[in-house]
Amino acid sequence: ADNTRIAVTPGDGIGPEVIGEAIHCLEALRAKHGLAVEWTRFPWPSHAWHEAHGESMPADALEQLRAYDAILLGALGDPGPVDDKDRYLLPDSISLAPLLDMRKGFDQWVCERPARLLPGARQYLADERARDIDMLVIRENSEGEYVSQGGRLRKGTSDEVATQMEVFTRKATDRIIRYGFEQARLRAAERVKEGRTRSFRTLDGRTCESQVCLITKRNALRHWGDMYTEAFEEISEEFPDVAIHHELVDAACMKFVQSPWAFDVVVASNLQGDILTDLAAVLSGGMGVAPSCNLNPTDPDVPSMFEPTHGSAPDIAGQGLADPTAMLFTTARMLEWLGRKDPALAAAGKELHDAVAADLAESGESQRGTQEIGAAIRRRISG
Amino acid sequence: ADNTRIAVTPGDGIGPEVIGEAIHCLEALRAKHGLAVEWTRFPWPSHAWHEAHGESMPADALEQLRAYDAILLGALGDPGPVDDKDRYLLPDSISLAPLLDMRKGFDQWVCERPARLLPGARQYLADERARDIDMLVIRENSEGEYVSQGGRLRKGTSDEVATQMEVFTRKATDRIIRYGFEQARLRAAERVKEGRTRSFRTLDGRTCESQVCLITKRNALRHWGDMYTEAFEEISEEFPDVAIHHELVDAACMKFVQSPWAFDVVVASNLQGDILTDLAAVLSGGMGVAPSCNLNPTDPDVPSMFEPTHGSAPDIAGQGLADPTAMLFTTARMLEWLGRKDPALAAAGKELHDAVAADLAESGESQRGTQEIGAAIRRRISG
Ligand SMILES: CC(C)[C@H](C(=O)O)[C@@H](O)C(=O)O
Ligand SMILES: CC(C)[C@H](C(=O)O)[C@@H](O)C(=O)O
Repeated sequence: ADNTRIAVTPGDGIGPEVIGEAIHCLEALRAKHGLAVEWTRFPWPSHAWHEAHGESMPADALEQLRAYDAILLGALGDPGPVDDKDRYLLPDSISLAPLLDMRKGFDQWVCERPARLLPGARQYLADERARDIDMLVIRENSEGEYVSQGGRLRKGTSDEVATQMEVFTRKATDRIIRYGFEQARLRAAERVKEGRTRSFRTLDGRTCESQVCLITKRNALRHWGDMYTEAFEEISEEFPDVAIHHELVDAACMKFVQSPWAFDVVVASNLQGDILTDLAAVLSGGMGVAPSCNLNPTDPDVPSMFEPTHGSAPDIAGQGLADPTAMLFTTARMLEWLGRKDPALAAAGKELHDAVAADLAESGESQRGTQEIGAAIRRRISG
Repeated sequence: ADNTRIAVTPGDGIGPEVIGEAIHCLEALRAKHGLAVEWTRFPWPSHAWHEAHGESMPADALEQLRAYDAILLGALGDPGPVDDKDRYLLPDSISLAPLLDMRKGFDQWVCERPARLLPGARQYLADERARDIDMLVIRENSEGEYVSQGGRLRKGTSDEVATQMEVFTRKATDRIIRYGFEQARLRAAERVKEGRTRSFRTLDGRTCESQVCLITKRNALRHWGDMYTEAFEEISEEFPDVAIHHELVDAACMKFVQSPWAFDVVVASNLQGDILTDLAAVLSGGMGVAPSCNLNPTDPDVPSMFEPTHGSAPDIAGQGLADPTAMLFTTARMLEWLGRKDPALAAAGKELHDAVAADLAESGESQRGTQEIGAAIRRRISG
């Protein structure tokens, strides 16, 4: 059979450093288990690439990437040097474009960000129940607030009007909500296997093993809020075993701080999901540990993309200080995903995840460098 | 001189209960100081009013309110009884409409929500520095994501498309940003008077007594993000004594949890401000203590509106359980605002604020009822 092929885009800032540890771990796993996996590095995007070529990625970048089974991305956003006003020269809208282009180009319509406060991770909340946080935030990743429609009228004058259109389709709404319910079921089954249970109440007083909470701002953004709510209620009838809940995004942020342990699966729009996943990341210990992935679960011919939630952190780049934990959890998730075609990869993903979690539990927030953490995790793989 | 006139709209749920305590405190202050203030109650909006009249407020509601110097609002949102599917009969879009109508009708373009973790208030964050939280979130309250433009095409079918337009004008952007800088200056002056100081770094390495942090999502919602950023940089030149900072809304939510004590004044769009103020409310102890106001600082002929950040909490309504603290802090803020015309009211506002804060410090999160808390605060006023 053919090797599984991974496109590695180290990206900017701390990206190459944390990707370096991911590659070392992949090498260790491949050597240990004889995995049928290979990878290719793509130097773009970066400020340097933009300098040389005047663009963030080659024009045929997506065509090049399409041939791969997955994309492993370090981090994006290299704004380059600063000007005399201490402002970066390359706007985010250019340096981050590849991220949005890949999501859009490969219709990676699910962004999945789990939040679990694992042993060793930093606990920001005072309440001890924070240790029980175990949620999966599922962000609609293909439309909504991110359709890039809009513009600036009378730009730069005092009469300027800037607009931004939000576009939501029922089709994309249905698929992300149904995905949420399916994940809730899978998570419940997973918990049962592990001997853990949770219980959630339905509106008619029954008890379920799992829950989906829909986020909208339907009291102010009525049109898509209502459409989301209708889709949610309809699809929920296919999943009588999953309890449902609805929160407004503002109240949800509050409850993420007050009682995050009460959430299971959370489904949100592109922008609201962006906000909630950063909050969820901090609840699970911060950007140093938060994995993320952009999935297309429906089209086997395009790659899904795996990147940590964190950015390129230019302030600490190149110093060997970045924590590769989030990147390695993300790599584990990628292997697990690729395991749909090759079960050996799923097993390797689980092994990597457990090694990263064990390292975190043992060392917590230690002052170790990127390579030291990577090496410690690798030793667990070889050992 | 004429009395200052307040329109009191108790609203729904716990609104009438907490407004009751506000009125008692106003009576106590009026009796003690001979304040030239009077008020009128308006029964709308509520589910009952809607049942009887088929609308949330009378058609001429805004005309009736316009004659007042301020509106004191309890809470909105009485969705009425539930149907056989356990769903409320009155959608939020009807029961909450008056709130948005007042903000829009009186061009209350500033929504101000301070967040300070006062002694006695519940601390949700583990870090002890949370005690130093002292920020003012200023929300653009007149446009942006809340312009109610959009709709549903092919409604209810699988081909449905729902849209929502965001509209931002440079004029409204300029005024809210300038307001933010002015508040930063006032807060710094206030701190100096109280013998407290804070220090913030400018980009060129100077130290300032205050800071304004602008929130956008300019890396994804580029058009208004860029306009906001340009306006911010231009206006900041008029305030060289105020340090400036910029955060993306997702990162800001994270930093509100990780290091909220580092913020001073925060300026955000309507929706992003809505989200950040709920988060700020929880940082200052939760909805039980968080005040809010909707101001029109430029047109003396329309009333500003004062409401706690909390909602109508139908689950505990009518039981005397609601904490009136947020309502009373809000009432204090109203008096302070009305003090622009009558300094005696400002003094009364300060007295009320101090009484509420003293009660909170002494009793903390005690299990007292609405009236008991109100009475304890009133005793401090009379005493
Ligand atoms: C970099 C930015 C455009 C991106 C987003 O908003 O989606 C990021 O915040 C994320 O969460 O992946
Ligand atoms: C009730 C709702 C429409 C309102 C808003 O979104 O502005 C509320 O959340 C608030 O913050 O005052």
